[in-house]
Amino acid sequence: MKVTVLGSQGAIPKVGLFSTSLILNVCNSYVLIDCCEGVQHQLRKNKIKLSKIEIILISHAHGDHYFGLIGLISTLSLLKRDKKLTVFCPLSVFKIIQAHLKFSKMNLSYELDLKVLNNNNKINIFNNNHFSIEAFPLKHSIYTNGFLIKEKEKKRKLILQKALDNNIDKIYFNKLTKRENVINNNGIKINYLDVTKEGDKAKAFAYCSDTAYFDELINNIKGVDLLYCETTFLKKDKDKATLTLHSTTIDAATLAKKGNVKRLLIGHFSSRYDDYNDFITEVATIFKNVIISEEGKKIEV
Amino acid sequence: MKVTVLGSQGAIPKVGLFSTSLILNVCNSYVLIDCCEGVQHQLRKNKIKLSKIEIILISHAHGDHYFGLIGLISTLSLLKRDKKLTVFCPLSVFKIIQAHLKFSKMNLSYELDLKVLNNNNKINIFNNNHFSIEAFPLKHSIYTNGFLIKEKEKKRKLILQKALDNNIDKIYFNKLTKRENVINNNGIKINYLDVTKEGDKAKAFAYCSDTAYFDELINNIKGVDLLYCETTFLKKDKDKATLTLHSTTIDAATLAKKGNVKRLLIGHFSSRYDDYNDFITEVATIFKNVIISEEGKKIEV
Repeated sequence: MKVTVLGSQGAIPKVGLFSTSLILNVCNSYVLIDCCEGVQHQLRKNKIKLSKIEIILISHAHGDHYFGLIGLISTLSLLKRDKKLTVFCPLSVFKIIQAHLKFSKMNLSYELDLKVLNNNNKINIFNNNHFSIEAFPLKHSIYTNGFLIKEKEKKRKLILQKALDNNIDKIYFNKLTKRENVINNNGIKINYLDVTKEGDKAKAFAYCSDTAYFDELINNIKGVDLLYCETTFLKKDKDKATLTLHSTTIDAATLAKKGNVKRLLIGHFSSRYDDYNDFITEVATIFKNVIISEEGKKIEV
Repeated sequence: MKVTVLGSQGAIPKVGLFSTSLILNVCNSYVLIDCCEGVQHQLRKNKIKLSKIEIILISHAHGDHYFGLIGLISTLSLLKRDKKLTVFCPLSVFKIIQAHLKFSKMNLSYELDLKVLNNNNKINIFNNNHFSIEAFPLKHSIYTNGFLIKEKEKKRKLILQKALDNNIDKIYFNKLTKRENVINNNGIKINYLDVTKEGDKAKAFAYCSDTAYFDELINNIKGVDLLYCETTFLKKDKDKATLTLHSTTIDAATLAKKGNVKRLLIGHFSSRYDDYNDFITEVATIFKNVIISEEGKKIEV
């Protein structure tokens, strides 16, 4: 699982910087989370093939999180995409995209599956053999979801010498890694545990933007390998965060600590700040393992 | 009058480049023509203050010409603009912007005056003391307008020594430059022509994107100091231009020549081309005074 940061800024991007978006490579599927204006430019700049995107998640209908969606939808069609694109978004964004398609008479080359999110609790929204996605409500000025992307239990690793010693035909090796017992060439049942070892750990990534801190959130992000949590404000601007239902450095650090996550990625910085070291310093007073959003940064989860 | 090119590309922008937009500084008013995705970034990169934009003209509802409009409208509000912004656009773009404002619950800090264009002939859409704007239909796959921005006749220049020799009080100098006759200190009527000389020439700029060539267009751009005409295709791709109702190099050059314009600015290049010298070469076989769109290029009209 790998995250690439496409935008680091809040609602008003600084010159040359972009609002919040990131893309997750999970088991070779690309999941794009939020689409700032210019996200298609950022994807190309970071050499991510637009055609590889399978799923887009839109947290809420504030422009810095969705203005780039229609441009990407349009460009994929101009590039003659033929495979389905699935977008999970609030009803408001659904209606806006429908308006673009209708009034600009856009005929897409591919199936656009716009799925409306209206959950008030954590729900599973996607599942395949390799990973799942859950959406959970955040606490913001309009309806907003966070997302939890979890890899499924990975294959075990074959201990080749043990498999050979046990006289197992190689056609059964794959079954063994999938936790199935097999019969060897001597007709004896072999337990997969005897010839395999634990595989790579299944990873989990959670995304929380935009939101005020609230205790119920902890359960939804508990123990993830990487938590993205917005830090629009430094702690001196707590009043602004409270007013606009955003998080401060302290809020994000508290969430990471109480959620017992491995690492914390922060971003969605207000344009009032120039020095992002202050963000690191403040978070680190509570939670040490913090990473700052910088455009183009790649993070192995 | 000065034009700054903000985007040079057609519908699919190349990495690091933007679709069609340009901004015109006319008598210290800023008129933005078409809004590609990321136009707010391009404006800032080119050090044009967003607050100075007074009028936006949208030619048609293809995404490469309007996807950046909502981002700019939103950012101006976040920056707490308080003066009116006037946008001229087709009904389709009007409805799309209305959908954004409604469904994302955007409350703007300023008056957004969205004016719908549905003219089928050339009409005047704006007038002030310094310049006028006319819209005229182009020939494209959806309803599209071109625009003609003309400075009004400029003040004459005072010949100071002659004014003094004629014993004219300096409080009348301004009147003289505005072509009014005055009475001098000896009670004698002075003709403004005797103490002033011709002022700067009033300039005109015409914008044609996107369009196929058609003869009736010539009258609408006749004699302008600078004509922007799209050249999506080289002449070898004439069939594609015909199919999609775009112009080739030859079409734009023919329009410039028949319209007897001073200079021609070309752009909106298809992403299939890498070498833009071919565009210059082909246009120059018919019309010599050609300028290529490069992002950030400033052209004194």
